[in-house]
Amino acid sequence: MSRRLTLAAAQLGPIQRAEGREVAVGRMVRLMETAHRRGAEVVVYPELALTTFFPRWYEEDLAAADYWFESAMPSDATAPLFAAARKFGIGFHLGFAERTPEGRRFNTAIYVHPSGEVVLKYRKVHLPGHAEYAPDRRVQHLEKRYFEVGDLGFPVVRAPVGGTEVNIGMLICNDRRWPEAWRVLGLQQVELVMLGYNTPSLNMENRGFEAHHLRVFHSHLSVQAGCYQNACFAAAVAKAGTEDGHELFGHSIIVNPQGEIMAQATSWHDELIVADCDLAMCALGRSTIFNFSAHRRPEAYERITAQVGSVVPPVWSPCGSGRDS
Amino acid sequence: MSRRLTLAAAQLGPIQRAEGREVAVGRMVRLMETAHRRGAEVVVYPELALTTFFPRWYEEDLAAADYWFESAMPSDATAPLFAAARKFGIGFHLGFAERTPEGRRFNTAIYVHPSGEVVLKYRKVHLPGHAEYAPDRRVQHLEKRYFEVGDLGFPVVRAPVGGTEVNIGMLICNDRRWPEAWRVLGLQQVELVMLGYNTPSLNMENRGFEAHHLRVFHSHLSVQAGCYQNACFAAAVAKAGTEDGHELFGHSIIVNPQGEIMAQATSWHDELIVADCDLAMCALGRSTIFNFSAHRRPEAYERITAQVGSVVPPVWSPCGSGRDS
Repeated sequence: MSRRLTLAAAQLGPIQRAEGREVAVGRMVRLMETAHRRGAEVVVYPELALTTFFPRWYEEDLAAADYWFESAMPSDATAPLFAAARKFGIGFHLGFAERTPEGRRFNTAIYVHPSGEVVLKYRKVHLPGHAEYAPDRRVQHLEKRYFEVGDLGFPVVRAPVGGTEVNIGMLICNDRRWPEAWRVLGLQQVELVMLGYNTPSLNMENRGFEAHHLRVFHSHLSVQAGCYQNACFAAAVAKAGTEDGHELFGHSIIVNPQGEIMAQATSWHDELIVADCDLAMCALGRSTIFNFSAHRRPEAYERITAQVGSVVPPVWSPCGSGRDS
Repeated sequence: MSRRLTLAAAQLGPIQRAEGREVAVGRMVRLMETAHRRGAEVVVYPELALTTFFPRWYEEDLAAADYWFESAMPSDATAPLFAAARKFGIGFHLGFAERTPEGRRFNTAIYVHPSGEVVLKYRKVHLPGHAEYAPDRRVQHLEKRYFEVGDLGFPVVRAPVGGTEVNIGMLICNDRRWPEAWRVLGLQQVELVMLGYNTPSLNMENRGFEAHHLRVFHSHLSVQAGCYQNACFAAAVAKAGTEDGHELFGHSIIVNPQGEIMAQATSWHDELIVADCDLAMCALGRSTIFNFSAHRRPEAYERITAQVGSVVPPVWSPCGSGRDS
C-alpha cells in the first residue's frame, strides 16, 4: 500500500498586538481553503498562532497576561477553524498558549483530526529566554515567565493523517535546536514532526559573533539534521514578518528524511507550501545507517541524562608532572 | 589573552592495499611540512591513515588481519611523523588500527603533542557495517568484525594545542552522524573536535532512496549541526579518491561554532586546508542558546539512555472506540 501524504505548511504573516483572535483564525481558514484546493490532507500552523508573540511583553502580574491564553479548545474564537477542518476533511496542527483549569500555563500544540477530536497534545519543553524583567535587554523574551516546562515528554502516536496511518510527533520553536528532542521522537519511530516557531531575524542580545544572516541557516540546519538523523519528515512553520515592530524571519520549510528541503516559504506573509511525502522513505535510514538497535551505544551516552549543564574537562599535564586526567 | 589556533586538516588521497606504511607516512610528513609553511600549529590526519581502508576485505581468520594493526605507537614506520612533529613544533591527530598487548582490536585515534607524548586517545564507539561475510553485499564493510566497540567513552581533555590551552575531543567517521556523541563531548565543554573518516561515494547497498549526491551533504550536515549545537570547532578529515577500486568522497572541512564551513578540500588527493580559529567563539553558544544548565531537560530525555533501539508508538483511536494510547 502506498503511504503518500500531501502535507501543507501554513506560514502566517505577523499578528499585531491589538488584533483579535478572529483575525488570525479568519486568515487560517483561508489558508486551509487554499490547502484544500491544492490537495493537502493536513495543515501545520505555527507556534502561538492565535496572537502576537506575547512573551516579548512584560506583565508584572501573571494574571494580566491571561488574555493571551486559551482556556478551552475549541473556543468560540477557534470554532471556525474546527468547522473548516470538518468541511474539507483536513487535519491540522495548531500552536497556542494553554491555561489549564488548574491555572497552569504551557506553550502548547495539538494535532486535530478532521472530526474535531484532539489526537495529540504536546507542551514545549525547551523554553528559551528568562523569567524576570531584564532591564539590560532591548527586547524581552519571557517564555520562562509565562510558561511552565512541558510535562508531557515528547509523545508520538500512530494516527490517521490523510489517507494513511502516520507516526506523528511535535516540537515547538526552540526545541528544534536540541538533538535530544529529535532523538526521543526518533526512538518512537516518528515519521512526521510538526513544528511551529516564532523566531526573530535579529538577536538583540548579539555579542558580536553571531551574524544575523546565519539565523535562518541555524534553523534549517537543526531541522535538516533532525530529519536526517531520525529518518523522518518535518513541517517547520513560522510566524513571519514585522510583528509589534519586531522582525520574524519566516522561511518555513518541509524537509524529507534525507534532510532535503522539499518546499520553502519565501515571503513574510501568509503563505502555503505543499509537498507530497512518501512515508516509505522513513524506512531507509531506520534500517541502515540509523538502525538504532544495531548501532546505538547508550552506555557511552550517560552524561546526556546524568548531567544538566556541562562540566570542565580534566587538564592534561606532560608525563611526570603530576597529571590529573 | 587571545586564544587563536591555526588549524590544519590534512586530507589524504587513496592508499592502495599493496602500499606499505612508509608511503603513507612519507606523504603525511610532506603535508606536515606544508602545514608548517602555512603557520599551522596542529595537523589532523584521517581515520586509519596508515593503510587502505581494510574493513572492505574479508579475512576468515582474524589473526590474518593483524598486518593492518599497530601494536606500538610510535613504531619504526611512524617514527618519521613523530620526528617531524618535534622538528616543526606541531601537534597531530592520527587515526590507526590498534592492537593492544592483550590482543584487543580497536579503531583508534590519538592526539600527539609535539614532544611525541600521546595527550588523548579515543576508540571508535559507533562501528558501522557487519561482523560476518555478507554474500549479498557487493562491498564488505567489516568494521564490526575487526574492531571492538570503543571502551574509553568520549573523553575530553584540556591540553596545550599550539600556543593556547584547548578542550579537545575526538570522533571517528560514523560517530559524526550520531548527535549523542557530539553532545557527550559538548557536555565536557569541547572546543575542538578532531575527526577522521573514510566514506565511500557510493552506497552499494542503496535501496533506491538515498541519492549518491547526498552523501557529502549528509556528512557536512552532521558535522555542521554537531558544531553549532555544541559550540565547538571541528576538523573533519577524509581519506579521498579511488582506493582499491572504491571511491571515497573526500570533501574534508573545518567548521566553526556557528556551523559554518571555514575551509574545504576539493580534490581527491593529499590536500592541506588551514583555518584560523578564534576559540573565544565557543563561548557565545555556550552562554546563550546552548547554555545547557539553563535550558536542558534531562528528565525528558530518558529514552536516550534507557533504550537502544526504537519502540513502536501507541495507536490512537477515536473517542469511545477503545483507544490504547
